[in-house]
Amino acid sequence: MPAPTPYLQVDLVRMRRNVRDAAERASVAQVALRPHAKTHKSVEIARLQLASGAAGLTVATIGEAEVFVRHGCDDVFIAYPLWLDDRSAGRLRDLADRATVAIGVDSSDAAANAARLLGGTAVEVLVEVDSGQHRTGCHPDDAGVVASVAARGGLRVRGVFTFPGHSYSPGAGPSAAQDERRALAAARDALQAHGLDVRVLSGGSTPSLWDTDAGTVGEVRPGVYVFGDAQQWELGTMSPDEIALTAVATVVSHAGGRAVLDAGSKVLGADRAAYATGHGRLLDHPAARIVALSEHHAVVDLAGSPLPRLGETVRVVPNHVCAAVNLADTLWVEEHGSLRSWTVSARGRNS
Amino acid sequence: MPAPTPYLQVDLVRMRRNVRDAAERASVAQVALRPHAKTHKSVEIARLQLASGAAGLTVATIGEAEVFVRHGCDDVFIAYPLWLDDRSAGRLRDLADRATVAIGVDSSDAAANAARLLGGTAVEVLVEVDSGQHRTGCHPDDAGVVASVAARGGLRVRGVFTFPGHSYSPGAGPSAAQDERRALAAARDALQAHGLDVRVLSGGSTPSLWDTDAGTVGEVRPGVYVFGDAQQWELGTMSPDEIALTAVATVVSHAGGRAVLDAGSKVLGADRAAYATGHGRLLDHPAARIVALSEHHAVVDLAGSPLPRLGETVRVVPNHVCAAVNLADTLWVEEHGSLRSWTVSARGRNS
Repeated sequence: MPAPTPYLQVDLVRMRRNVRDAAERASVAQVALRPHAKTHKSVEIARLQLASGAAGLTVATIGEAEVFVRHGCDDVFIAYPLWLDDRSAGRLRDLADRATVAIGVDSSDAAANAARLLGGTAVEVLVEVDSGQHRTGCHPDDAGVVASVAARGGLRVRGVFTFPGHSYSPGAGPSAAQDERRALAAARDALQAHGLDVRVLSGGSTPSLWDTDAGTVGEVRPGVYVFGDAQQWELGTMSPDEIALTAVATVVSHAGGRAVLDAGSKVLGADRAAYATGHGRLLDHPAARIVALSEHHAVVDLAGSPLPRLGETVRVVPNHVCAAVNLADTLWVEEHGSLRSWTVSARGRNS
Repeated sequence: MPAPTPYLQVDLVRMRRNVRDAAERASVAQVALRPHAKTHKSVEIARLQLASGAAGLTVATIGEAEVFVRHGCDDVFIAYPLWLDDRSAGRLRDLADRATVAIGVDSSDAAANAARLLGGTAVEVLVEVDSGQHRTGCHPDDAGVVASVAARGGLRVRGVFTFPGHSYSPGAGPSAAQDERRALAAARDALQAHGLDVRVLSGGSTPSLWDTDAGTVGEVRPGVYVFGDAQQWELGTMSPDEIALTAVATVVSHAGGRAVLDAGSKVLGADRAAYATGHGRLLDHPAARIVALSEHHAVVDLAGSPLPRLGETVRVVPNHVCAAVNLADTLWVEEHGSLRSWTVSARGRNS
């Protein structure tokens, strides 16, 4: 073992295949792939994605953008409705000196605020619209007004984006992709009605990815596809043999006739969607479920299979891989039996 | 603001009061207080606890123990049923050269394994018993056998410990404390029946803390009491004016007529107990609830109160403060209007 358990291990053969397959499918569909780097937060993985044809990176925060630009990425989209102040605007101007940078706005107030601070600079904006997740984003019909405020304030409007996050429910991928198409098309029309050019309609999530209407949507921003996780497994959008990241954990106890592992919520994250069947799964025991999770304990019900021995290691599939990666400083990367470590350079860059 | 939002802020006046009050109550009850440092993972806070009379620190991992011993703590109890190998045993021997060190075991197999690797060293063991949480720990009646295996293998047996984690349910503190007393008393009797001396019966959790029977339990290991969180608020074990840590977040959107904050699960953690009324609360808006949480978004229902303005900052109370602290590199500490930063030195030390 490269490190004491628990630690995160990447199966590089699988991960390369996931990266390559998505790039090829996007290429065939003639849609630009702009992977969300919040999932891996790792410079090496970003480089693999860019080398395989990604149009640039998506990130969630200015801090993440700074890490990837510092390491050579020249095109980042902060797909988040930032509320800017002098300090954050200054950081964006610095970034725009070194890379192509875009941010999100989802209201006329936010557009006016961004224009006041960044009008006339190279920082571009995309208007976020709500396609059904009901988190952030304006109504598609309002996107024209928001974009006009930005444009009149001297901001370069690149287009429109949405996150069809309601795809994260069993069977919801196709309908979420339909909603995405409708919302982006309506927003495009709204911008054009205001005389604005629309260069990019950006969407995509891992569960809805290949249901996306590439005739409408020009760019997709999936994140999780690179590793997979128990959520994708349970949604049926990725199969267990595509899962490329696991937490290696040791069985420390057989208390109560169950296996208790040393990987808890401080390693796996505590995400548990309504459709999840447990707090995580074991890659090599598909029927097993983590039935209780605390900070340093995962209690596993083996569903009648023999318990792994005390001291044995098992591979845990986190429910939500983005959360697990953000808890780790290092990914241990395995390829054909050799191991190396990659730093999670953007871990904790929440602002 | 000391940093871009979101960031964690500690109200030092409140935190000092929490530390002092617990120390005084423990002193009056004649029970040793060994705070669990997994909550704060911060050297400065450990020093405050030790200076106020704590008997030593509790930690969850060898890595946490290494951080606190390196910074001068001379007594650490790793309250976890470790499964040791050569590497971890070596790290414990190194620690025992510099501090008093104890670990947990919860089975005869684990005791035999620990004895094989650490018999004859200064590392002490406590037998973990299950008092009702049903996570780890042997049955109290079996503690004598486990302790005997350890003692025969040359390990110094300090006593018995339990975590009455089933106190984390509304109104459950007193009954969990009863269970704790019974389990520790039974385990003490079991050790004594094997001719073993029992120096320490260790228990305690923040919700059950002041229901603990100090006539039986000689040491308590609460962690969360230092900061409080929304769980303690909702359990009624701490009041809002005792909460000493919040995540300072900016309102970035009013989409859907709700306030959306830039502090998501990568800042607050994703813990949501069955009894939780939301994904976190706002300290200054007690009726408000975080009704949806994703990695960088907290969607807040203000329960009819006016929305905080776009760009305004609010103070978020995480559901589970241990998870939130483990996501941060820095705590911003406020006292009488002045701010300083403390490093979360043991963040991510999961092994």
